[in-house]
Amino acid sequence: MSFYADPNIKNTERIFPEQGRSEYLRLDMNENPTGLPSDFVDDVKKKITPEFLSTYPEPDDFRKKYAGYIGAKPENIMLGNGTDAILRYLLETFGEQGKDVVTVSPTFEMYRINCLLLGLNHRPVMYEWNETMKRFFVPIEKICDAINENTRVVIVTNPNNPMTDAYEREDFLRIVDRAEAFNAVVICDEAYHYFCESTMRDVALERKNVILTRTFSKLMSIPALRLGVAIGDPEIIKVARQSQLSFDVNAVALLFGEELLGRADIVEGLIESEREGRKYLVEELKEEGYEYIAGEANYVLIKTKKDPKEVERLLREKKILIHTYGSSSVIKDYLRVTTGSKDIMARFLIAFLEADQGTESVDDK
Amino acid sequence: MSFYADPNIKNTERIFPEQGRSEYLRLDMNENPTGLPSDFVDDVKKKITPEFLSTYPEPDDFRKKYAGYIGAKPENIMLGNGTDAILRYLLETFGEQGKDVVTVSPTFEMYRINCLLLGLNHRPVMYEWNETMKRFFVPIEKICDAINENTRVVIVTNPNNPMTDAYEREDFLRIVDRAEAFNAVVICDEAYHYFCESTMRDVALERKNVILTRTFSKLMSIPALRLGVAIGDPEIIKVARQSQLSFDVNAVALLFGEELLGRADIVEGLIESEREGRKYLVEELKEEGYEYIAGEANYVLIKTKKDPKEVERLLREKKILIHTYGSSSVIKDYLRVTTGSKDIMARFLIAFLEADQGTESVDDK
Repeated sequence: MSFYADPNIKNTERIFPEQGRSEYLRLDMNENPTGLPSDFVDDVKKKITPEFLSTYPEPDDFRKKYAGYIGAKPENIMLGNGTDAILRYLLETFGEQGKDVVTVSPTFEMYRINCLLLGLNHRPVMYEWNETMKRFFVPIEKICDAINENTRVVIVTNPNNPMTDAYEREDFLRIVDRAEAFNAVVICDEAYHYFCESTMRDVALERKNVILTRTFSKLMSIPALRLGVAIGDPEIIKVARQSQLSFDVNAVALLFGEELLGRADIVEGLIESEREGRKYLVEELKEEGYEYIAGEANYVLIKTKKDPKEVERLLREKKILIHTYGSSSVIKDYLRVTTGSKDIMARFLIAFLEADQGTESVDDK
Repeated sequence: MSFYADPNIKNTERIFPEQGRSEYLRLDMNENPTGLPSDFVDDVKKKITPEFLSTYPEPDDFRKKYAGYIGAKPENIMLGNGTDAILRYLLETFGEQGKDVVTVSPTFEMYRINCLLLGLNHRPVMYEWNETMKRFFVPIEKICDAINENTRVVIVTNPNNPMTDAYEREDFLRIVDRAEAFNAVVICDEAYHYFCESTMRDVALERKNVILTRTFSKLMSIPALRLGVAIGDPEIIKVARQSQLSFDVNAVALLFGEELLGRADIVEGLIESEREGRKYLVEELKEEGYEYIAGEANYVLIKTKKDPKEVERLLREKKILIHTYGSSSVIKDYLRVTTGSKDIMARFLIAFLEADQGTESVDDK
């Protein structure tokens, strides 16, 4: 190359998300496969006028409304172009080149990628199979032990993706205390809030070194629009916001976000529908004798009989997308399926059983 | 603070954009004050369904369409959450801490802010009043002289904001050659493309070290949605894209962008309307004996009789927003007004003449 480029960025291999997913039943990225009620969407769209579109976005109304929604103040809130953008801002601000970012593993892949891009040292604490508990597990001691004077940031995903396990409050506080002792910041990613009873929101509001993030891409069903929120002490939020673009979240995302906060009935309906679908799926899997990992999130890990990659391929032929893991992952024998309404789960289940247990090729379909 | 934060970010003072602008006639940020045709907006909105909203954005269709639109290939194109985001990615990728970023000054303020945030050394080349030419001017030699072995990035704004002057092709090529000799990247910001005949698009496609950026926030009239485009050689675009979020531009921006590219009639109409309004404003200003700076962009600098800050205040009372400059700026005696349709300009002109020449207070309105 005839020009300088940052070596961390230049050497990070990126794989951008798959395209053309609209013709599939999308159970691979934990989106709500059904979406919001049509009449609500139609109502909100009425506010999108030529003048609305020709004005730069103004985030403060939504920021204020969201603060009220969670019993906090606007100074406790930072918005971003998806949690994706917030995570980048937080790692740019609170990370330091060559110093550690501690996460569990497996977890959301973008933590690692952002560390690579920014020259931060990603220090994963590995899940291991625990024969007594009959599940994959990371002891809190192991996470705490990984936090030391080299640590700048700890990312805790509550509940974790893909493992579905949520943190006990006292365990989370142990991590926060340990991080605080080393002046490190704890990011608590609650992307799967609403599917999970446990939240560390009040910890984020009380402690100085905790930032909690939430997204409108999962339960709230608007991943297309890109809307993420961070919650924390005014001082840490102020510093984090300084890293931000002048215009970050678009006005349509802010509009839908604001309207959704006013519609508890819709939010309740979304929660109800996913819970029912997940319960149904889990019961059917039990009936069929499958090992699975399900918790408080809109996805379930299923241990397949065939190679998960083969099941993935067969489901894709049936126009259904699911997620699988690399051959070095502790969950390489599992696929992850997004859970949605009972109808959607029934449709998945028929296709899945056919793919995983069928002997016939589906090539002739 | 009880936690580490990046010193560049921590020490950068940020002022976020004003809120509550919708109740004003917005002539301060070079948005189109009128916006797109209503029937077009209504048509495009029909495609925003619950399923559309609940699917992560897919940028490749728009990327392909935009490439075709400018006679390039998808590999020549990078998209971003506004040019704002693209600029940040480019400076993160091609800038180096402690090394120089060369721009003219005054220019778009975010170049400087991003340099501060990223620890890059901003090296401004100042406009000066040229008595012979009767305008503010930066000789190309001065820009070239500022480029040396410490330079990593040169940003050329074509036409410049707020100065309105566009670059001659041979002058731009001198900058590109000089930058290339020092392995520096040239970012050519064509935010005001469409208002300006001159474009360096083919240079960006031919040379290895040039990236050209364009926005959908100005003529294209959708600043609310955040859509920016970068154009360059596949190698430089590939490296720049590596720095990018997985999900960056939202799906509504992609949708409107794609639909706009297919409506040359609308784009022509927007160009026509602004040109007519600007011509009208300039003629009236001449008639009134005002000094002004107008060029190939949707804004005009007007030398006010009163202190521009006072005129700004009086116009604000009349519910009109314009832009002014700090007391150390070479254009401290000017205000900048966004140009739009003739109707809008007539409305501005009446208010402006009253504010700048009136003796009566408007406080009693």
